[in-house]
Amino acid sequence: MARATTAAKNNALATIASALEQDITVLKEANARDCAQAQEKALDAAFIDRLTLSDAALRTMIAGLRQVLSLPDPIGEISELKSRPSGIQVGRMRVPLGVIGIIYEARPNVTIDAAALCLKAGNAVILRGGSEALNSNLALARSISSGLAAAGLPADAVQVVATADRAAVGKLATMTEYIDVLVPRGGKSLIERLMREARVPMIKHLDGVCHVYVDSAADLTKALAVCDNAKTQRYGTCNTMETLLVAASIAATVLPPLCRLYQDKAVALRVCARSRTVLEQAGIASLADATEADWRAEYLAPILAIRIVDDLDAAIDHINTYGSAHTDAIVTEHYDHAQRFLREVDSASVLVNASTRFADGFEYGLGAEIGISNDKLHARGPVGLEGLTSLKYIVLGHGEGRR
Amino acid sequence: MARATTAAKNNALATIASALEQDITVLKEANARDCAQAQEKALDAAFIDRLTLSDAALRTMIAGLRQVLSLPDPIGEISELKSRPSGIQVGRMRVPLGVIGIIYEARPNVTIDAAALCLKAGNAVILRGGSEALNSNLALARSISSGLAAAGLPADAVQVVATADRAAVGKLATMTEYIDVLVPRGGKSLIERLMREARVPMIKHLDGVCHVYVDSAADLTKALAVCDNAKTQRYGTCNTMETLLVAASIAATVLPPLCRLYQDKAVALRVCARSRTVLEQAGIASLADATEADWRAEYLAPILAIRIVDDLDAAIDHINTYGSAHTDAIVTEHYDHAQRFLREVDSASVLVNASTRFADGFEYGLGAEIGISNDKLHARGPVGLEGLTSLKYIVLGHGEGRR
Repeated sequence: MARATTAAKNNALATIASALEQDITVLKEANARDCAQAQEKALDAAFIDRLTLSDAALRTMIAGLRQVLSLPDPIGEISELKSRPSGIQVGRMRVPLGVIGIIYEARPNVTIDAAALCLKAGNAVILRGGSEALNSNLALARSISSGLAAAGLPADAVQVVATADRAAVGKLATMTEYIDVLVPRGGKSLIERLMREARVPMIKHLDGVCHVYVDSAADLTKALAVCDNAKTQRYGTCNTMETLLVAASIAATVLPPLCRLYQDKAVALRVCARSRTVLEQAGIASLADATEADWRAEYLAPILAIRIVDDLDAAIDHINTYGSAHTDAIVTEHYDHAQRFLREVDSASVLVNASTRFADGFEYGLGAEIGISNDKLHARGPVGLEGLTSLKYIVLGHGEGRR
Repeated sequence: MARATTAAKNNALATIASALEQDITVLKEANARDCAQAQEKALDAAFIDRLTLSDAALRTMIAGLRQVLSLPDPIGEISELKSRPSGIQVGRMRVPLGVIGIIYEARPNVTIDAAALCLKAGNAVILRGGSEALNSNLALARSISSGLAAAGLPADAVQVVATADRAAVGKLATMTEYIDVLVPRGGKSLIERLMREARVPMIKHLDGVCHVYVDSAADLTKALAVCDNAKTQRYGTCNTMETLLVAASIAATVLPPLCRLYQDKAVALRVCARSRTVLEQAGIASLADATEADWRAEYLAPILAIRIVDDLDAAIDHINTYGSAHTDAIVTEHYDHAQRFLREVDSASVLVNASTRFADGFEYGLGAEIGISNDKLHARGPVGLEGLTSLKYIVLGHGEGRR
């Protein structure tokens, strides 16, 4: 895979798309078996919805393959090539990571999305989806293999773990001699389990406790727009704001209109004592008291914690203490406050005057994403093709030795 | 530390250098106690040599501080800032990693070198040197703290683990809530232990089984120069060649003069059967037979394994099978062979017509290095200041929300 040309990889993505189109009946049969079993187990409607390979879902998967096909190939790019006094030239070349393991829930669309990104970056991939989707994933893997073979690439470059045994996850996570990096996509309990068990390095997403801080020098219109969007554009996403911080000096101006807006959208508010005073003075009721646990909560729901802080320093302290190093925003017109927030908030994405919801591979222009990383090493924030590659040093010489 | 300006960090490095100069008597007293204990334990001369803070060693450490001072500050650099259709600008900012743990042998000079690099990159650092150097390291840490305080930076940004208890290493390696990355510098057994035990992500160097492949299209003069330098310029370094691979078609031309040169320098040769035939036909004797274990050996000594391979493919297969993904070179005048070797050899440093000995932070122009990484994630190859930093995303908006 590492030596595959861009043309060969793009051709493979196209033949996989065609194979999926051809195999549609077989794929839907396999998926129907998974869905029937899920219904027997009385799994909930949302679960079965994510599991189902509808015509629309298949079309989206096929469109996704063609979109990854259209992305620039990151592999082989040479950067920073410089001449050294010894006579050699030193630079860096972008190369595949090798074998990537993906662990994910019972969502067959991830099988195709993840495989496409890994292949485009020249990697082999081992997929372990939720056991409830095993028949679907095995059928998808057969279509992928036939597409790879038709394009002259190794048919086994994409493999699905062919067992529903949950012990396979732990095994996969310790196979350092076969797997270069693990990308777990799933709930917090899976990630926490892997953080204890895994020996293979991970690109992982733990949780998203995201903040907007409305600074003393905020523009009111921008504050309302950003805070509204960050909380209410979607509730269940990891980059949704979970705690709103407001500078004390501007709280009486910002909080009442903002909280009326939230209450109009049925967002439940959990507030600190100072916020309660400000809001009740403005005639706003139906407020719950925020506890210490609320500052650490990832609600993924129409609930918002609100805290008044003294100033920028207190806001940065709160975020670095209670946040999850995911995505945090400041609303301010103050040059130095913006600069300090950008530099001192230790999160994967830090925004000025923009909604936290922008922290996303597509919005950032990566073209696609395999996930969002809370880690500081290697890939941080939305992870696209580049995060699935490595930079090695190359040296071009003319027979030089070291003195 | 993360918010320290370049001036403050440079000032701290200068005041630490001054503090070391002032404290020289105290430092040498503490070190003398360590050396006396090492002599009582009958530790060998090389060990005590590395442990000793001679006047020359102290001068080198102080010069090292001033050299790190002169390096460009990587922190705060913004790259790839691009405007997106949504109206936001997205870019990446280079920021410190946070708290770095360094585990190393009883070499007090590493205490200063590692602290200097970590501080320059805006990190705090926890140092755990070999227990035999504890008094020296604690004395050095006091000088560092007084230098930091004099420069107005946190005096405890550099800390030495104040116990000789070996259990401290295992403890340090699992404190994910306090330490962002671990840089172990030591023997293979320490690294292997940490690979089993550590929960903190590591930037690590396991071993250096480095190759030179003399291609069928090699220039003889360059081949002799590169192979001589790669093996004999220094024997004990991780980027020294340990196995020489030669294309069958050129073996009779290259191997005899090269092996005469090695034998003149008392390098012991362990050869494959085909190499033996070629060499004995040229009248070269005193050859040992190479075994499978030799292909995996890191001799760090005047010993060289030699193998004749059929062609470039066989050479790449050998390196990717037996090597340690450290540093590998090809000698060739063939354009496509050079390109394929660069791309397909999966090592941290890949060289064309240059000695493996160049794989070094100073030779690569990094200014200094904290170590050489065999890992593929994050930092690969020689690790300088950049490897001690992280890239976060920054977004500059004007009140935008996501649609």
